[in-house]
Amino acid sequence: MNHRTAIPGQRDTLIDELRNLLSERVSTSVSVLEQHGRGESWHPVQAPDAVCFAHSTEEVAAIVKRCAETATPVIAFGSGTSLEGQVQAVDGGICIDLSQMNQILEVNNEDLDCWVQAGVTRRELNHYLRDSGLFFPIDPGADTSIGGMTATRASGTNAVRYGTMRENVLALTVVMASGEIIKTGTRARKSAAGYDLTRLFVGSEGTLGVITEVCLRLYGLSEAISAAIVNFPDVRSAAEATIQVIQMGIPIARIEIVDSDYIKAINAYSKTSYPELDTLFLEFHGTRAGVAEQVQSFNEISQDFGASGFQWAEHEEDRARLWRARHDAYYAGLAAYPGYRGYVTDVCVPISRLADCIAETQADIAESGLFAPILGHVGDGNFHSTMFVDPDDDAMFATALEMDKRMVQRALGMGGTCTGEHGIGIGKLKHMRNEHGDGAVDTMKVIKQALDPKNIMNPGKVVDC
Amino acid sequence: MNHRTAIPGQRDTLIDELRNLLSERVSTSVSVLEQHGRGESWHPVQAPDAVCFAHSTEEVAAIVKRCAETATPVIAFGSGTSLEGQVQAVDGGICIDLSQMNQILEVNNEDLDCWVQAGVTRRELNHYLRDSGLFFPIDPGADTSIGGMTATRASGTNAVRYGTMRENVLALTVVMASGEIIKTGTRARKSAAGYDLTRLFVGSEGTLGVITEVCLRLYGLSEAISAAIVNFPDVRSAAEATIQVIQMGIPIARIEIVDSDYIKAINAYSKTSYPELDTLFLEFHGTRAGVAEQVQSFNEISQDFGASGFQWAEHEEDRARLWRARHDAYYAGLAAYPGYRGYVTDVCVPISRLADCIAETQADIAESGLFAPILGHVGDGNFHSTMFVDPDDDAMFATALEMDKRMVQRALGMGGTCTGEHGIGIGKLKHMRNEHGDGAVDTMKVIKQALDPKNIMNPGKVVDC
Repeated sequence: MNHRTAIPGQRDTLIDELRNLLSERVSTSVSVLEQHGRGESWHPVQAPDAVCFAHSTEEVAAIVKRCAETATPVIAFGSGTSLEGQVQAVDGGICIDLSQMNQILEVNNEDLDCWVQAGVTRRELNHYLRDSGLFFPIDPGADTSIGGMTATRASGTNAVRYGTMRENVLALTVVMASGEIIKTGTRARKSAAGYDLTRLFVGSEGTLGVITEVCLRLYGLSEAISAAIVNFPDVRSAAEATIQVIQMGIPIARIEIVDSDYIKAINAYSKTSYPELDTLFLEFHGTRAGVAEQVQSFNEISQDFGASGFQWAEHEEDRARLWRARHDAYYAGLAAYPGYRGYVTDVCVPISRLADCIAETQADIAESGLFAPILGHVGDGNFHSTMFVDPDDDAMFATALEMDKRMVQRALGMGGTCTGEHGIGIGKLKHMRNEHGDGAVDTMKVIKQALDPKNIMNPGKVVDC
Repeated sequence: MNHRTAIPGQRDTLIDELRNLLSERVSTSVSVLEQHGRGESWHPVQAPDAVCFAHSTEEVAAIVKRCAETATPVIAFGSGTSLEGQVQAVDGGICIDLSQMNQILEVNNEDLDCWVQAGVTRRELNHYLRDSGLFFPIDPGADTSIGGMTATRASGTNAVRYGTMRENVLALTVVMASGEIIKTGTRARKSAAGYDLTRLFVGSEGTLGVITEVCLRLYGLSEAISAAIVNFPDVRSAAEATIQVIQMGIPIARIEIVDSDYIKAINAYSKTSYPELDTLFLEFHGTRAGVAEQVQSFNEISQDFGASGFQWAEHEEDRARLWRARHDAYYAGLAAYPGYRGYVTDVCVPISRLADCIAETQADIAESGLFAPILGHVGDGNFHSTMFVDPDDDAMFATALEMDKRMVQRALGMGGTCTGEHGIGIGKLKHMRNEHGDGAVDTMKVIKQALDPKNIMNPGKVVDC
């Protein structure tokens, strides 16, 4: 492990101090360290020196204060589902595991908001809310922690209607690099009172501070929910139908593309029998009449693009089965290629360029010989290809790396972004200057250096300090 | 005028240099300076030393570079409609008037977005869009510049459905304190690529850089639009009906309270004959069936709170007349008290506290003896009282100042914010630490100092550097 601290043994002293603070909630067992040094991606494990399981904002502040004294890196850890190497301890240091900070602090039914600790997962929150008539819509697939979702500006399948974490976080409690605790806002729905610190921390990936509590917007459950799958002759037709839906302003809740390769893998893995064609997974929320009207409008549009084979799911269990199949696509791909690993890409373009971007990517994939099916949140212009790669085949891995790079370049060339929702971590650092330009990246760097002068907060991520 | 530059004559040299750059587009005429040293509020005029009328981002960059060399303050000026002293040149300096940067650079119909120069006003933009089927919804009343609306995180009557400038700005071109030009994002609807610089500049009131170009979300015009007024027995009933509407998730586009005092003034000023009762002004957007359904739901709710006297406006001219009357409330108040000035307050609370907050404020106003009618964007929990004050009556002005302070304290005590949409400027600086705490305000200050080390960008506003 790489250690930045100048004095040997200093880190051991620090760990002793942390044990005084948290007793058995500090771990240096190799398995715990390794588990905390990786997300769910291909990025190699880089373990921290110790893992602290915090129970309160005050404990996090105490840990950070001690790390600041010795300029020791601090890495916040939620559920370990990040995809671009966000939790890798590139320089060792102390990992703060927030998963035991899993209290729902308050739910304000009248205001449609709640305060939760950062370690609460989105499913825990929705389970807690189940009898209230409210729900939290953001759904990136995995059962991630709210803190982690905030830190990576996550989104997922419902973002086309409900927005991303950017739109759904009202305020935060954050432990700064000095150990100071701040609140970034109030529960008021809008405010013009000073700089938008909330949005600055949303998407900062633990590099500016540790998010310990999150105030979220909630939504009333719709009177009617209807889900469906529908087939298209090709991905371009499905993408073009999606563009029309968005332009018509149909308030669709989910519109997800899954290509025929993925459908085949899903059928094999989930024992489903969906037609093995390029497919949109849909969900409509609203009043009964409103959903009926949305469905009718969608039908009219989709006919123009050769849609066929609608299968509807109205009951909750049927809808759950349909979305489970969609969310299991990744595992279905892994099952189709035992021993392989998934290398998930993530780009987002203005929706007018979506059909072109996907079509060019498909042609590129076909030429590469990789198994790299496509799915995506097409209502946002956001899609992924998962390249399934033999970890022992260096040439195949190199091909995947090049494919990823070309996808990003293509998206940037179309006025898009190198990541719609997975974040920068260490995996996409190399694209930051291409996307934003030196001036904007240097501005980010100035902010990072000002708020974290010792560069202890998740160093090596997001900006190249 | 207060000058910070140490060397006398240095500012004259700077103005000569600016004349070399812009020739006749630099003004030092007293009337132009005074016009640029005030917004539309009670704050006294504080004139800059010169006003530059810029035509391009590059010109703004050249001006800022020269100001940076001599540590001269730079104040960006849009349409001069700010309400908390945002454009006052508290320390002299160079005002950059952006009103001649009024080009609409591109409209992307398929992507529902556009790029405009900062000086374009919201009415100019909507006029330009009139045949496209698209519109830009944010409507703070005055015909303000898009740059100014961005800089103050403006919102107004449509925010309950369409969000504020925070949700509707996709990207910005900004001239930094060094004169460097940066772009803060792309047209992609979402991105997880680094710190959210866009949101950092939205609401920064010119203190971190000069916004010269703005990329905005646009929306398709609804198939059906229906507006109405409806009376309530008191403001509390109207507020409680609003709370229900929001909790039910009715996607109402506008829901505005205007109290009976304001209705009386409006009737006198606008020659209308609205019942002189506490009133909600409403607008519903959607499909024909959707609007009908929303209206029915609203009717059912409002009956429970004693609503009466619905008056509907379906045709565009009738709707325009209704909203004109609402927007003219301020001028109606001034007309009722000739020679008085309006002192507009602005607080926002979680909606569950709205009825209490308004009721307590009304009681406070009644006790004060001021003419201070209330209106507000109640769907967001945001309302204003305009205290009409005789400028020659120091005691009355002092009463108004105290009332404003108590309104803010009341809103903060209810978990709200000292400003929902007017911003901080110089007027609300004193409330920042009460609202945010020292840690958060000091964090803002660190960001300000890092991005503007010479404190030249609109000094004296937002943060107390």
